[in-house]
Amino acid sequence: MEKPRVGIVLGSDSDLPVMEETARILQDFGVTYEMTIASAHRSPDLAAEYARTAEERGMAVIIAGAGMAAHLPGVLAAYTCLPVIGVPLQGKILNGVDALYSIVQMPPGVPVAAVAVNGARNAALLAVQMLSIQDPELREKFRRYKQELAEGVVRKAEKLKTGGKAIV
Amino acid sequence: MEKPRVGIVLGSDSDLPVMEETARILQDFGVTYEMTIASAHRSPDLAAEYARTAEERGMAVIIAGAGMAAHLPGVLAAYTCLPVIGVPLQGKILNGVDALYSIVQMPPGVPVAAVAVNGARNAALLAVQMLSIQDPELREKFRRYKQELAEGVVRKAEKLKTGGKAIV
Amino acid sequence: MEKPRVGIVLGSDSDLPVMEETARILQDFGVTYEMTIASAHRSPDLAAEYARTAEERGMAVIIAGAGMAAHLPGVLAAYTCLPVIGVPLQGKILNGVDALYSIVQMPPGVPVAAVAVNGARNAALLAVQMLSIQDPELREKFRRYKQELAEGVVRKAEKLKTGGKAIV
Amino acid sequence: MEKPRVGIVLGSDSDLPVMEETARILQDFGVTYEMTIASAHRSPDLAAEYARTAEERGMAVIIAGAGMAAHLPGVLAAYTCLPVIGVPLQGKILNGVDALYSIVQMPPGVPVAAVAVNGARNAALLAVQMLSIQDPELREKFRRYKQELAEGVVRKAEKLKTGGKAIV
Amino acid sequence: MEKPRVGIVLGSDSDLPVMEETARILQDFGVTYEMTIASAHRSPDLAAEYARTAEERGMAVIIAGAGMAAHLPGVLAAYTCLPVIGVPLQGKILNGVDALYSIVQMPPGVPVAAVAVNGARNAALLAVQMLSIQDPELREKFRRYKQELAEGVVRKAEKLKTGGKAIV
Amino acid sequence: MEKPRVGIVLGSDSDLPVMEETARILQDFGVTYEMTIASAHRSPDLAAEYARTAEERGMAVIIAGAGMAAHLPGVLAAYTCLPVIGVPLQGKILNGVDALYSIVQMPPGVPVAAVAVNGARNAALLAVQMLSIQDPELREKFRRYKQELAEGVVRKAEKLKTGGKAIV
Amino acid sequence: MEKPRVGIVLGSDSDLPVMEETARILQDFGVTYEMTIASAHRSPDLAAEYARTAEERGMAVIIAGAGMAAHLPGVLAAYTCLPVIGVPLQGKILNGVDALYSIVQMPPGVPVAAVAVNGARNAALLAVQMLSIQDPELREKFRRYKQELAEGVVRKAEKLKTGGKAIV
Amino acid sequence: MEKPRVGIVLGSDSDLPVMEETARILQDFGVTYEMTIASAHRSPDLAAEYARTAEERGMAVIIAGAGMAAHLPGVLAAYTCLPVIGVPLQGKILNGVDALYSIVQMPPGVPVAAVAVNGARNAALLAVQMLSIQDPELREKFRRYKQELAEGVVRKAEKLKTGGKAIV
Repeated sequence: MEKPRVGIVLGSDSDLPVMEETARILQDFGVTYEMTIASAHRSPDLAAEYARTAEERGMAVIIAGAGMAAHLPGVLAAYTCLPVIGVPLQGKILNGVDALYSIVQMPPGVPVAAVAVNGARNAALLAVQMLSIQDPELREKFRRYKQELAEGVVRKAEKLKTGGKAIV
Repeated sequence: MEKPRVGIVLGSDSDLPVMEETARILQDFGVTYEMTIASAHRSPDLAAEYARTAEERGMAVIIAGAGMAAHLPGVLAAYTCLPVIGVPLQGKILNGVDALYSIVQMPPGVPVAAVAVNGARNAALLAVQMLSIQDPELREKFRRYKQELAEGVVRKAEKLKTGGKAIV
Repeated sequence: MEKPRVGIVLGSDSDLPVMEETARILQDFGVTYEMTIASAHRSPDLAAEYARTAEERGMAVIIAGAGMAAHLPGVLAAYTCLPVIGVPLQGKILNGVDALYSIVQMPPGVPVAAVAVNGARNAALLAVQMLSIQDPELREKFRRYKQELAEGVVRKAEKLKTGGKAIV
Repeated sequence: MEKPRVGIVLGSDSDLPVMEETARILQDFGVTYEMTIASAHRSPDLAAEYARTAEERGMAVIIAGAGMAAHLPGVLAAYTCLPVIGVPLQGKILNGVDALYSIVQMPPGVPVAAVAVNGARNAALLAVQMLSIQDPELREKFRRYKQELAEGVVRKAEKLKTGGKAIV
Repeated sequence: MEKPRVGIVLGSDSDLPVMEETARILQDFGVTYEMTIASAHRSPDLAAEYARTAEERGMAVIIAGAGMAAHLPGVLAAYTCLPVIGVPLQGKILNGVDALYSIVQMPPGVPVAAVAVNGARNAALLAVQMLSIQDPELREKFRRYKQELAEGVVRKAEKLKTGGKAIV
Repeated sequence: MEKPRVGIVLGSDSDLPVMEETARILQDFGVTYEMTIASAHRSPDLAAEYARTAEERGMAVIIAGAGMAAHLPGVLAAYTCLPVIGVPLQGKILNGVDALYSIVQMPPGVPVAAVAVNGARNAALLAVQMLSIQDPELREKFRRYKQELAEGVVRKAEKLKTGGKAIV
Repeated sequence: MEKPRVGIVLGSDSDLPVMEETARILQDFGVTYEMTIASAHRSPDLAAEYARTAEERGMAVIIAGAGMAAHLPGVLAAYTCLPVIGVPLQGKILNGVDALYSIVQMPPGVPVAAVAVNGARNAALLAVQMLSIQDPELREKFRRYKQELAEGVVRKAEKLKTGGKAIV
Repeated sequence: MEKPRVGIVLGSDSDLPVMEETARILQDFGVTYEMTIASAHRSPDLAAEYARTAEERGMAVIIAGAGMAAHLPGVLAAYTCLPVIGVPLQGKILNGVDALYSIVQMPPGVPVAAVAVNGARNAALLAVQMLSIQDPELREKFRRYKQELAEGVVRKAEKLKTGGKAIV
């Protein structure tokens, strides 16, 4: 079994419904990954240890999803040289703006790559793009994915035109 | 020399102009403190170590000031059982709302006591109130401080009345 | 029957569903408390009286939950030397940002310790941390609570790994 | 000397530069007023006493200006049956949105009439409108004021047209 | 049949479910009112005419509820010398912040008294307070209303205490 | 069959439920239109091509609806001299504020005419107003539409009055 | 002297410094315009009259700039069938978000075309685009303007490259 | 001369003062780059062409800075398979929130990696982290950079301690 190239870290198991899309997309691209839970606040040693050892365990990218104060991506970034992608998760109260600010407003020196609130899919695609820098085959897969996106739009546009009943 | 009861931690030395008011107030109340710098992102081990050992070094309260993503108070809270007071610092860009959300929106289980944006004075006073729970003398000092606040308002109200020239 | 150490004050009985978690956590920690309703606006004398006498009745900490203009924690803080913890409650309209601003933006001189919007659990834990400053036994309980939080994360992480079906 | 009909209350003497416009407008309309300072947090008894006795001292309207948590108008409204007009004052940090929310989001039962952030002039005009309900002479003064506003616009429009050099 | 003293104006009939509470409260206080619909944008002449003639028809206060751009209260205020109370109504999209800003941020010279988003009850109470300036009997009714509010809080506080089962 | 004068472009087929009202209104006014899907991000060439050729295909106005980052209206405006109307669509997360800012904050040189969040109806009416500049008949239709709006308000106001039971 | 095709209306003469760019751009394109002041609140009859007669006086487009509650564009739109472009002006306090919401969130039936906060230039360009629907010569001028914008970018890009000293 | 690995694209030459820090950091790390200007709106063909050919010209990462509607990073991402890093730039009006939302809220399928508002330094460091996935030497440089950051904090903490005069 191949070593995981991408580590997906959830701040809580309640983040799974959103974040499993990240895993699904990586699977579709044939990118190996592992998924775990490591709260920046409730299990800080676990989170620190995860980030500190990720590189030597063969990881190339870390993706972290977190809501509310959402310190997890930043905390992981503090302990690793790997690029960290942060997914702000929408909470029940502040619509994810709290998590977005916490993740994107990192101070100079320790970057986190933020994607949209609940942007689990794009987190995976961004990891694929990063890995593609050295992996032409993966780049080709991404190019086909992109093409299919465009073709999907064309198909939907045609369906809208020929359907005739778009508007009553 | 007495051991510090309050630890003031800055995320950056640029936070000093705001946060030194915290120290000044503690001094006024005769509360021992120490002040240091320990970035949650640039020196995570230092920050973790600081929080982990604060209790055994005799600290009773930690006050942390941070701007932007402002993870410092939450990261310290993750490593200590002491109460942590967080001061959101106004950045150049988002008016401190980013820091406020990052500090106040802590997940269940790991509290941080947030004060106002740039609320360095109130952070010290809150620490004084916490320490007063077991220190009647300090409580009395705080009571006098509170009385003086009220008297100050009365004095200003009288000055406004007798000054006569408040309004042209 | 022991005298309550923590006073929980609700601005309205409609705040009970959120704020009873505060009571539950204090119970779990064996901290005595009382819970009452005292609106800052509809019953200002009651609220003022509550805060003014809390210290002499043996209270050590006050926790107040309030929504919308949410003046209650600040009003209580005006009348007492005890530390006051404010819980901004999410209203139907502005997502609790109104209550958060009202509670956290206290002017210099009269601090309130703000927790997250609807952060009833953390309000209790913060009170426990404050009381632990002079109570080593309570400190130990909190340390175990913290440990269990960390262990809970580890257990969930393992369940995610061994469950095998996290991702279809 | 006539008894004041309007009470202007400032949360702090630093609010004077904005709030003295309220006094100036009342003077222009010949409405008697008094101006004082009474912090809701630093001198709560003073504030409560002020509001509680305002009616018997012949007041008809209270205007209160406050920044940050801005509880003052709401606290005064809690202790009086008189209409209370609140002026949210712009702080250095959150642009006055904090004060606006604190003042306008009053719970059902205890209204405050909010005007614009730093809207000291309109607070006075609103008081004039309220007093005009029973004072036809004052109503006439307000009508002339309104007419002059309209004429002022016409004059400026004409100046713009005839000035010729509005646009280079 | 007595002439109405308060005019309630809705921007749209869809505002009725919120705004009928305004009418109900006025009824409870025995204040005569009329309720109508007059959009600032769809029927501007109607709205202007309403405001222009309100005073001569014996009105003393106008209350206007509006959502989204919510120009109605400001437009009415432009055409009348009567005090205008604006109720920002929560829309489906921006939580009423749009309506709040539109109503409260009136320019100097033309005040509108803003109440909370969906604050239909307080709009009525504010009108009652304004009318009470010249009506001691109405003032007494308001005083009793205020007292009942306070007593209601006391009753609920006692029920919470004696109920015993507030917390399981 | 007449050539379409207005092009309605959706960023995604999920925008159809909101945007089909644009089409319906244009139909009501007898304005020819076509509706298609062309994502600024997933099918950029399609979107660019659409905008680049719209003028030569006889279009006079383009209406584009988009949510989240909502670049579509701006991207179309970059490739055409035709006026472009942008409809910010409410997403599940940030209430459409993200789309509103993306659409309305266009840099100097390349305007987009923004309407309200989900303002599909007004987008159509704005297009009608633009086309009316050279089409007196269409102007008349719009004038009647406007009159009917006003009459509709009057009818509703009367129904409210005569219904008698608006308030229980 | 030709009749003006575009009416520029300012809510106040203090809006002139921003809004005169609108006039300058129209001049550059050879589009006739007039500029006046007509407050929606201080001179409502003037504003209503302006909008009501604009069409018969030969206008084709109205552009209105306003800050704070910024009702002017919406009020003009209520009285005219002409397309109205609204320019939200940045106030001293809420950064223009208040004006933006007031202008863009128009209710269904009465559209306003909003441009960016302080977007005086784009308001003019949008008017040019609207007028170009029936004016091929003006369309050509706009096409050249657009081309020059693109060429300007190319020139700056080249200057950046050849300057050599962009980065020290 | 080596081919550039990173393309820095500015939406306007006014973005240079902030964005040249991106170039400086890349230089420090010995990463080749090129810097150009290509507006998404004023020169869309240039921007599209840049992104479309970046990969074949040997680029590995694109960094784009843009303010206001800030479509540039998203537009580049639409035309390339390379990872695109977006730097939201603070405008004069909305504090960069507009640019932040436009850049980070990309729809599923086309990711952009957002950094903090004005986060030019972190954009470069994120690119370095991405390139380090295949470049152990660069990874080592980044590790040293990270170490120096931590050591810098320690040095400042010591200076604060020994300086003695931090607090007067």
